[in-house]
Amino acid sequence: MRRSSYPYVSPVIARYADVDAFLHINNVAMAQYFEDARISLLRTLLEMQQMHMGDGRVLLARQSIDYLREGRYPGSLEVGVAITAVGRTSVTVGMGLFQDEVCIAISDAVLVRLDDKGPREWGADERTVLSDPVWQPQASD
Amino acid sequence: MRRSSYPYVSPVIARYADVDAFLHINNVAMAQYFEDARISLLRTLLEMQQMHMGDGRVLLARQSIDYLREGRYPGSLEVGVAITAVGRTSVTVGMGLFQDEVCIAISDAVLVRLDDKGPREWGADERTVLSDPVWQPQASD
Amino acid sequence: MRRSSYPYVSPVIARYADVDAFLHINNVAMAQYFEDARISLLRTLLEMQQMHMGDGRVLLARQSIDYLREGRYPGSLEVGVAITAVGRTSVTVGMGLFQDEVCIAISDAVLVRLDDKGPREWGADERTVLSDPVWQPQASD
Amino acid sequence: MRRSSYPYVSPVIARYADVDAFLHINNVAMAQYFEDARISLLRTLLEMQQMHMGDGRVLLARQSIDYLREGRYPGSLEVGVAITAVGRTSVTVGMGLFQDEVCIAISDAVLVRLDDKGPREWGADERTVLSDPVWQPQASD
Repeated sequence: MRRSSYPYVSPVIARYADVDAFLHINNVAMAQYFEDARISLLRTLLEMQQMHMGDGRVLLARQSIDYLREGRYPGSLEVGVAITAVGRTSVTVGMGLFQDEVCIAISDAVLVRLDDKGPREWGADERTVLSDPVWQPQASD
Repeated sequence: MRRSSYPYVSPVIARYADVDAFLHINNVAMAQYFEDARISLLRTLLEMQQMHMGDGRVLLARQSIDYLREGRYPGSLEVGVAITAVGRTSVTVGMGLFQDEVCIAISDAVLVRLDDKGPREWGADERTVLSDPVWQPQASD
Repeated sequence: MRRSSYPYVSPVIARYADVDAFLHINNVAMAQYFEDARISLLRTLLEMQQMHMGDGRVLLARQSIDYLREGRYPGSLEVGVAITAVGRTSVTVGMGLFQDEVCIAISDAVLVRLDDKGPREWGADERTVLSDPVWQPQASD
Repeated sequence: MRRSSYPYVSPVIARYADVDAFLHINNVAMAQYFEDARISLLRTLLEMQQMHMGDGRVLLARQSIDYLREGRYPGSLEVGVAITAVGRTSVTVGMGLFQDEVCIAISDAVLVRLDDKGPREWGADERTVLSDPVWQPQASD
């Protein structure tokens, strides 16, 4: 996917602390970038205070990351986020990490909506917001 | 998989810095635990200095993590590691994160051996070591 | 100070993520070790849930760290902690970071007890616990 | 000091990973911000590749941080950096962390120039660059 495929883009500034012994951005740091971007979009959509909602919360159930190229420090990056699927109690997010417009990693994350008893269905309002085509991957030109 | 299925076990002590706003161990911290355990085994087997070898290095190409239960702070944990596949230029590692003998997350990681020109075949000695059944998942009792 | 000067000792296992581009333990990782040890002692003494108490909390106001020697990965370490002063609303903690019994860093931290209105005096019980000579620096042999 | 007192300013974007159990920016995360800004200025001045120079390197010897106010997530911040002293083998850096133009933490850091045998004098060029008044604290209006 290209950067323009993602409807939501979140900025990152690489830190010295993100760099590993090879002077490249460490793969755990990239996981941190994806976490931040994912939470940023979902907070916006679901009006969650730190991923907590009035009657429950949203937890990461599964994440995969493909590391495609090395990231460079110092430098800034962008994380593109799109919603790729909405289940009864879950949402799947697709993300791409870009540096200088080049994709250096992609990630899929499945999040589950929970209350004290376990997984819980999305409310109607939540489902409407999450299913809005504006947050789905966009056709690139 | 149970803890006894993993031939190599690496200890972790949870840190306050690993805890998120819910007082649980954060998912990025768990990625850090898996990274440490994976590198610990591969360093031992391949005599790598920080994942560097004489004529190349080993890079993470893909990782998936399934988050099964929440981790608790303060507390210690264990990461079990097994080698599940050896390719021409790659190795796949299966891992489980355990707290009080209960599995709280599992992960698969694919690592690729590289030199300056790109992926590079394992040497015969490296392949022998990586393919040793002693590092494969063990039958649980 | 020697390790035996500290009445409370908290273990640390260095992680690959703690290592910087020189293959030494990064100074921010050491700050994380000190944080964890300090919180571990204070939680024990003050029965705090994550540094929160019933009617307030304890915040770090000031910390200094002297970096004396380089830390080595892989390896384990120990953080020694002692209470060096108790003020009306604050407590000062002295710490030492040890690897193979050698001190590689020392730190002083001042923490302040707060409620919603600002600094707040310790309760009588809290003051008794914090002032107990058992938590003060011990005479080394 | 005010933000305009610092001749060099480095941007930071707070990450979800920086937030502690109180939903404030954690003090270790702030140490990471200061590290990044300090390295950014010194790399620029000394043309260091990751704090390594041709015949030596620059290590952090001592750092103190005063935590003045709580930092907010989500949000961006700025770290102001000034050179406050140049010794025979060392340099002292003064820093301020700002959010919405308000100073939330200040830090002093002493760095030492080393080669394999221990502390080593700055070269004439290095001393000239580090002593340039342009990098000293500026008079605020």
